[in-house]
Amino acid sequence: MQTTATTYSPRPDAPIGVFDSGVGGLTVLRALLERLPDEDFVYLGDTARLPYGTKSPSSIRQYSLQAARRLHERGVKCLVVACNTASAAALDVLTAEFAPVPVLGVLEPGAAAACRATRNDRIAVLATESTVRGGAYQAAIVRRLPQAVVSARACPLFVALAEEAWTDGPVVEGVMHRYLDDLFVAGAEATHPDTLLLGCTHFPVFASTLARVLGPGIAIVDSAATTAGSLAEVLEARGLCRAPGAGHGRVTLLATDGAERFARVGAVFLGRPLAPADVEIVDLAPAPAATAAST
Amino acid sequence: MQTTATTYSPRPDAPIGVFDSGVGGLTVLRALLERLPDEDFVYLGDTARLPYGTKSPSSIRQYSLQAARRLHERGVKCLVVACNTASAAALDVLTAEFAPVPVLGVLEPGAAAACRATRNDRIAVLATESTVRGGAYQAAIVRRLPQAVVSARACPLFVALAEEAWTDGPVVEGVMHRYLDDLFVAGAEATHPDTLLLGCTHFPVFASTLARVLGPGIAIVDSAATTAGSLAEVLEARGLCRAPGAGHGRVTLLATDGAERFARVGAVFLGRPLAPADVEIVDLAPAPAATAAST
Repeated sequence: MQTTATTYSPRPDAPIGVFDSGVGGLTVLRALLERLPDEDFVYLGDTARLPYGTKSPSSIRQYSLQAARRLHERGVKCLVVACNTASAAALDVLTAEFAPVPVLGVLEPGAAAACRATRNDRIAVLATESTVRGGAYQAAIVRRLPQAVVSARACPLFVALAEEAWTDGPVVEGVMHRYLDDLFVAGAEATHPDTLLLGCTHFPVFASTLARVLGPGIAIVDSAATTAGSLAEVLEARGLCRAPGAGHGRVTLLATDGAERFARVGAVFLGRPLAPADVEIVDLAPAPAATAAST
Repeated sequence: MQTTATTYSPRPDAPIGVFDSGVGGLTVLRALLERLPDEDFVYLGDTARLPYGTKSPSSIRQYSLQAARRLHERGVKCLVVACNTASAAALDVLTAEFAPVPVLGVLEPGAAAACRATRNDRIAVLATESTVRGGAYQAAIVRRLPQAVVSARACPLFVALAEEAWTDGPVVEGVMHRYLDDLFVAGAEATHPDTLLLGCTHFPVFASTLARVLGPGIAIVDSAATTAGSLAEVLEARGLCRAPGAGHGRVTLLATDGAERFARVGAVFLGRPLAPADVEIVDLAPAPAATAAST
């Protein structure tokens, strides 16, 4: 089932694999499609086991490996981990397992974007519980900007709100105030962050409401566009770009559960209509040894 | 691994198995402990795969069977499915698989409680997306009360709010108004339900806030206490009650992921402090054929 580094080398005309715990990573796929319109993509959402954000690092690593193996079986030329939680917990094991296929996460590009945006070296990160507890964003920012003061906040309700497509209105603003007022309102103004990093792929849908709630002067950044730029650089450097005009921007959507829900909720994140028939259901449960060879 | 009906018969001194997709079922365990203080309990929360409420019926059945088999291996004398979603989707397959071990869900007791409470035959059910779409509550109510008018509403944000332990305040009231005003405020008063059934084990933590938001005259019922009563009757009828004073109300807690989070969030639902060391982590992934015999 596994192809070794000596027999496998990625081809420019192969698709790009993108995986996420569910539909949130479609905000990243959207940015990739805009930046790389000639490339084909295979997106896998592990909807049967979402959310990853409240699970333990060892479970997240196991799930990420299973998802990435399924994309690898489809011959992808590189792998984008479009899930902050999986980027934080599993990027190292994925990079080791799939070399020489390049593996990119969304965490480092997001941290880089925040470091470029801040003027006062104070950055707030909104993420899932697992990402915040793991401290990976805090570390990635401080590696680039050692004097940075990073405040990380777990905002699990934002995930549920995004999946309900409630992106503005009094309830959403109330949740934002409850999560953020002690960072942006309490205390001396000089201690407030000037940059807010959306460290979960679900959160870009709240960008305009957050901008209104926080008021002017706060830069709101996410990792989608920056990840697309990093991917373009990696493909270029590795000679893996598809010839311009050769591809079709084809998107294959895989999910581990619920095509109907994937299409309905995913359309909000991808920004275009989806039908259940567009989504192929796959099973990632570990294959018994006897059948592994046939996959 | 499986014990057949002819060789296995439940014993009165065995523990009672309780399973849920996560920590919400601890509200049911709490009611069982109050009603049956002499019994021992083994509770299994499938936290690695929660929530069940947005997943497909076939996934829910598969997960429920895996969880129930693990409890069966521990020799439980009966099985309580303390998860509305699993009760709706999987009670029939569990009952067939584990006979003669009695299997009780929370759905029928909840429906019975609502039918007893209503005076105007109008019942609102709050539940997860999967439970609402499956229509099992609607069917269980109409079987008992054919003239009933049932309005079912999926409230996924309540699950996220409960797990954040946000059970009152303006955000919670705002969510309640957004989900419920068209049922309880819009239209003629005569068409409003007089009974609200909390059809998800997470929701009893909102009972007092819901009572304030909805005002007097609305009966709020859940299935925990009624399920405890049903369980007592089943144990009595089958001669499976533990002798009074013989047991210790021992509780064994199993989870499939995240002992720390289980203890922290679960304490809200169980109503007593829990430590991570109180929670044993188990793996429900399908065992490869070679090792199944050893479990």
